[in-house]
Amino acid sequence: MPVVVTDIKRADPDTAAALAEFGVATVHEAQGRTGLMHQRLRPIYKGAAISGTAVTCTLPPGDNWMIHVAAEQCQPGDILVAATIAEAHSGYFGDLLGTVLKTRGVQGLIIDAGCRDIADLEALGFPVWSRSVCAHGTVKEVLGDVNVPVSCGGTIVNPGDVIVADDDGVVVVPRGTEAAVKAASEARIAKEEKNRKRYEAGELGLDIYKMRERLAEKGLTYVSQAEWENGK
Amino acid sequence: MPVVVTDIKRADPDTAAALAEFGVATVHEAQGRTGLMHQRLRPIYKGAAISGTAVTCTLPPGDNWMIHVAAEQCQPGDILVAATIAEAHSGYFGDLLGTVLKTRGVQGLIIDAGCRDIADLEALGFPVWSRSVCAHGTVKEVLGDVNVPVSCGGTIVNPGDVIVADDDGVVVVPRGTEAAVKAASEARIAKEEKNRKRYEAGELGLDIYKMRERLAEKGLTYVSQAEWENGK
Amino acid sequence: MPVVVTDIKRADPDTAAALAEFGVATVHEAQGRTGLMHQRLRPIYKGAAISGTAVTCTLPPGDNWMIHVAAEQCQPGDILVAATIAEAHSGYFGDLLGTVLKTRGVQGLIIDAGCRDIADLEALGFPVWSRSVCAHGTVKEVLGDVNVPVSCGGTIVNPGDVIVADDDGVVVVPRGTEAAVKAASEARIAKEEKNRKRYEAGELGLDIYKMRERLAEKGLTYVSQAEWENGK
Amino acid sequence: MPVVVTDIKRADPDTAAALAEFGVATVHEAQGRTGLMHQRLRPIYKGAAISGTAVTCTLPPGDNWMIHVAAEQCQPGDILVAATIAEAHSGYFGDLLGTVLKTRGVQGLIIDAGCRDIADLEALGFPVWSRSVCAHGTVKEVLGDVNVPVSCGGTIVNPGDVIVADDDGVVVVPRGTEAAVKAASEARIAKEEKNRKRYEAGELGLDIYKMRERLAEKGLTYVSQAEWENGK
Amino acid sequence: MPVVVTDIKRADPDTAAALAEFGVATVHEAQGRTGLMHQRLRPIYKGAAISGTAVTCTLPPGDNWMIHVAAEQCQPGDILVAATIAEAHSGYFGDLLGTVLKTRGVQGLIIDAGCRDIADLEALGFPVWSRSVCAHGTVKEVLGDVNVPVSCGGTIVNPGDVIVADDDGVVVVPRGTEAAVKAASEARIAKEEKNRKRYEAGELGLDIYKMRERLAEKGLTYVSQAEWENGK
Amino acid sequence: MPVVVTDIKRADPDTAAALAEFGVATVHEAQGRTGLMHQRLRPIYKGAAISGTAVTCTLPPGDNWMIHVAAEQCQPGDILVAATIAEAHSGYFGDLLGTVLKTRGVQGLIIDAGCRDIADLEALGFPVWSRSVCAHGTVKEVLGDVNVPVSCGGTIVNPGDVIVADDDGVVVVPRGTEAAVKAASEARIAKEEKNRKRYEAGELGLDIYKMRERLAEKGLTYVSQAEWENGK
Repeated sequence: MPVVVTDIKRADPDTAAALAEFGVATVHEAQGRTGLMHQRLRPIYKGAAISGTAVTCTLPPGDNWMIHVAAEQCQPGDILVAATIAEAHSGYFGDLLGTVLKTRGVQGLIIDAGCRDIADLEALGFPVWSRSVCAHGTVKEVLGDVNVPVSCGGTIVNPGDVIVADDDGVVVVPRGTEAAVKAASEARIAKEEKNRKRYEAGELGLDIYKMRERLAEKGLTYVSQAEWENGK
Repeated sequence: MPVVVTDIKRADPDTAAALAEFGVATVHEAQGRTGLMHQRLRPIYKGAAISGTAVTCTLPPGDNWMIHVAAEQCQPGDILVAATIAEAHSGYFGDLLGTVLKTRGVQGLIIDAGCRDIADLEALGFPVWSRSVCAHGTVKEVLGDVNVPVSCGGTIVNPGDVIVADDDGVVVVPRGTEAAVKAASEARIAKEEKNRKRYEAGELGLDIYKMRERLAEKGLTYVSQAEWENGK
Repeated sequence: MPVVVTDIKRADPDTAAALAEFGVATVHEAQGRTGLMHQRLRPIYKGAAISGTAVTCTLPPGDNWMIHVAAEQCQPGDILVAATIAEAHSGYFGDLLGTVLKTRGVQGLIIDAGCRDIADLEALGFPVWSRSVCAHGTVKEVLGDVNVPVSCGGTIVNPGDVIVADDDGVVVVPRGTEAAVKAASEARIAKEEKNRKRYEAGELGLDIYKMRERLAEKGLTYVSQAEWENGK
Repeated sequence: MPVVVTDIKRADPDTAAALAEFGVATVHEAQGRTGLMHQRLRPIYKGAAISGTAVTCTLPPGDNWMIHVAAEQCQPGDILVAATIAEAHSGYFGDLLGTVLKTRGVQGLIIDAGCRDIADLEALGFPVWSRSVCAHGTVKEVLGDVNVPVSCGGTIVNPGDVIVADDDGVVVVPRGTEAAVKAASEARIAKEEKNRKRYEAGELGLDIYKMRERLAEKGLTYVSQAEWENGK
Repeated sequence: MPVVVTDIKRADPDTAAALAEFGVATVHEAQGRTGLMHQRLRPIYKGAAISGTAVTCTLPPGDNWMIHVAAEQCQPGDILVAATIAEAHSGYFGDLLGTVLKTRGVQGLIIDAGCRDIADLEALGFPVWSRSVCAHGTVKEVLGDVNVPVSCGGTIVNPGDVIVADDDGVVVVPRGTEAAVKAASEARIAKEEKNRKRYEAGELGLDIYKMRERLAEKGLTYVSQAEWENGK
Repeated sequence: MPVVVTDIKRADPDTAAALAEFGVATVHEAQGRTGLMHQRLRPIYKGAAISGTAVTCTLPPGDNWMIHVAAEQCQPGDILVAATIAEAHSGYFGDLLGTVLKTRGVQGLIIDAGCRDIADLEALGFPVWSRSVCAHGTVKEVLGDVNVPVSCGGTIVNPGDVIVADDDGVVVVPRGTEAAVKAASEARIAKEEKNRKRYEAGELGLDIYKMRERLAEKGLTYVSQAEWENGK
């Protein structure tokens, strides 16, 4: 039975919104390297960096009807996550639907299928992470679900989870963990900044992370070119 | 027998040139969702939007000789469509051939293979939609055809058809239908503008297109999260 | 036995640095169409054009430890070439490692795997040619080699070879041939400039390269559309 | 926190086992065209057709440790579902692990990554549906989860769900729906058999399903070749 | 306007049927290396080798309605060619439709999309060349065309053309050329048999085709390993 | 300068021939998980398992001339390794060339491109590992090299190295290491057989390899389903 779940619980909106600044790579690391979507999901234009709470929907092949249904369930600060149930490249989404969602305050769209009108969407300032850019139109005949757990980009998204998306891709932060992930992201950034300064001063990871001993234990050997050519 | 057809009939040049402004997605819709090339054909730089009449050629694997032959058949306002007869990624086209075609007033190139010198081509202002960016050179040994019907990007192109290409991809408008497609594109744009205003005012597709009843008939059910968790 | 070769012989640094201005397509042609890496290796941002001497390393699946080891072997003017021993898309490289390499005067990275932090790397001005953009992190558990011959992007790279990389891709110039390749590149550019002028004046390749006779010998026939339709 | 859930609830084992006879295509249809894994998952040999209850695990890139952990959680009649958290092709599974699972009465393996020793696995009679065949070995360094919900082949699998796999691919039947899906599968088969007899007698779908009127309403026109050539 | 062309002209049926024995590679060569479909079209089982006259149809994304319409237009000895207008992997065809077509004497199906029920189709003896094996079902909502020229597998197929398909793939022979292609195939086979005997007797292509002189002219040099290592 | 190196040093022929029995996965492990070719190289038929010494050649795009040249350099027990310098899918090799090589006692072909006549090659008993099956023909116009180091399937092959190929893929054993790899393969097989017996007796890898303690140290936790649902 196709359903629309209407009153989903969302992650804390302020925390959700704050995760964008850390970026996908850091958030993904901060939560233990889980929740990253497949690299096939790419932004339609560079430079967008967003985060927000997920409204989810599933799309039958070549059918974008449920995006219209899902739009009504979206609130300001949300990100729409449109999963497919079969590999799909058609253009399920264009600038008119972008206008609908932007008007409702939606931050962006993650869609494991095709997107079209990408120049207009960039002009509108509505970012989309998609599998393809494709103008092929879709129909409105078959139902899917809205706000159920979905598999999108090879990872599970529950409605109300936090989505973070930038030029590096898309990551999902499960609802309820957003505060801990924010704290871990801040800690990671702080540590990285410290290391960055040491790197800029010319230090090496070999010394900062004390790798030399462990490399030697594992058997790494330093040889001259002459030794290598003879020993080969 | 390899042939060059020299006096092809072209679609009306003014109408052909006018289709660019509607864009690929609209033109594709306006003619009943036919003629779109596969999404693997991507522009080598963003922002180009062209339309014009097709000169066609076929390319044997790794051989770009027929592009030189086809160049002579091109007139101002044309777009060259280079089809391959086997999957190919070599760089069949670069800035020198771009200079040849631009000098003749050609609008751009559609090639179901690789392109190189993409920075130079962007500087030259000669747009290319290609399958790959690849510097590997080609030879001039085997003949193909010029101005015969070709299969390019998964669709048939007849010489003299109209090609429309932008950031969304490439679509083919059969010669003889260009006026009707232009009219249908104008009508579609007008309708979209009306709907865009309603969208910007906060209306939903569910109401504008009166979808609610049909969704209910098909069995779409709205439930609360609590209901969904129990009912599951 | 995993090894690090420490005192590799490098191609002449001035010649290595000079090849960038010719670009990948020209250098590839100038050395007889060899040494081009697969088109899957794409720059993470447009407009970078570099050349330099190769430091090489091999990466086990999901493990970027050897990049830290290789960093120490890099000198100003080098380009790091990171090969994988199995298909890999994880983000082996990000802005911190970019800082390390940039601080050492490295020109850029060629990696047959994923890269992350691409916005930060563009801001830093450290170009990367990679197979994917992917935020998935890597571990530091398994050894590889540094400065041995590697297979990267479908071609062999020996440490000390010259790498040239731009928007068209990546090409390898074997150490010892760099001066000859530079001379051949200059000759090619000079010849291309002469032909470009003729193209700009409206001449065709058919005439410049005297192709018409050979095309006729191979059997190319020019027919009118009417003839073609009847003869078909 | 990586966890192993030890006492999962399983779908009814007899019903789970019975679904194999209907096959993937029928079961997928019978449950409303949901739950099908991506077509990239292919059997390592033809002719295997199994069904059973899912034990799930997640695999870090290039690391098969959790298959050993999951093996202990498997019971006779189970099917192991090994999801990955990043695109992976290494050979996470071979004939030794096949021996472990077969000894425990496991029906087969679904793995969204690579498999090796495929000739030995066929000789052993242990079927695997995998993304690749690849001999590259894996390590045992990083933890994942066992018996949590996973995203495998683009669909969600909960531990205890029913898996059906044959030459057409893999489909997931949610625990609790298996009896209804079995009944619907039986009904579908019965209906198909009736239609098959009519097809074998030379009837057409156009008549059996009374399509002609609806096709005409949608505008399908029958024309002679002469009419089509003129009307074109 | 979607059309069904009802009285297409077919290639000579006896010649069409006779081409299967030569095989795809020989027929493709015999007609000058044209008309080969892309290698993504693979047989669902090994060993089938067919030829016959094409009935064509186009399939909208995820919609197999037109296969039912096309079935009525098929005669004994035909091969159905189902083209798509967008990349598609769903299972548009299964054993029931296979029964319909086999009952009408159709030789097989070429479909640039997915196929399901492949074990049943093999048992039925109805061969299919498809892009994917995928159980995902399709709908019957949108019209396409029957017996118009189509672009399938990257090549143009006109209704009534001859299709040849075997383990090497699929090739199209234009109607009207089938007798000449048959004669050329016979000549090619005869010549190959003669060369095969010489090969079996230990002769080399270098001598049979007198390649040595031309290789030397092009600059091929024979060196000893010692020379090569020094000269390198 | 294209060269043919005529008197390459080969690995010990008896040891080379003996490696086939261990299989690709074992040999790959025995030499430290190096030298495996990419999984895109698949056998054209199942069940072949060969090993032998490599004769190498490079193939320009769409040109198979050098296979004829390489054939003359092959001796009984060799395996021909044909690398490409650009992505290629044409059918560079068919049953006639298969006859040439089989007559010379060659064990099989590894080709990072397309192969045709696969039914005939299976009947002939000449196995090929290729990237594609494709009937598209090639030309004989451009030179490559024979018996130089090549990059094939993402790994370096030196002439005279040992190649092992079976249903799991292809692995390269560097000349000079074949005896050590054989010994390591034997040791690995012996150890695996011992473990297989324990597995068949119902023991788990967790106990055989004493993994439980290390898993706990890394933080793996066992929980009941109830605990997991609450703790979530």
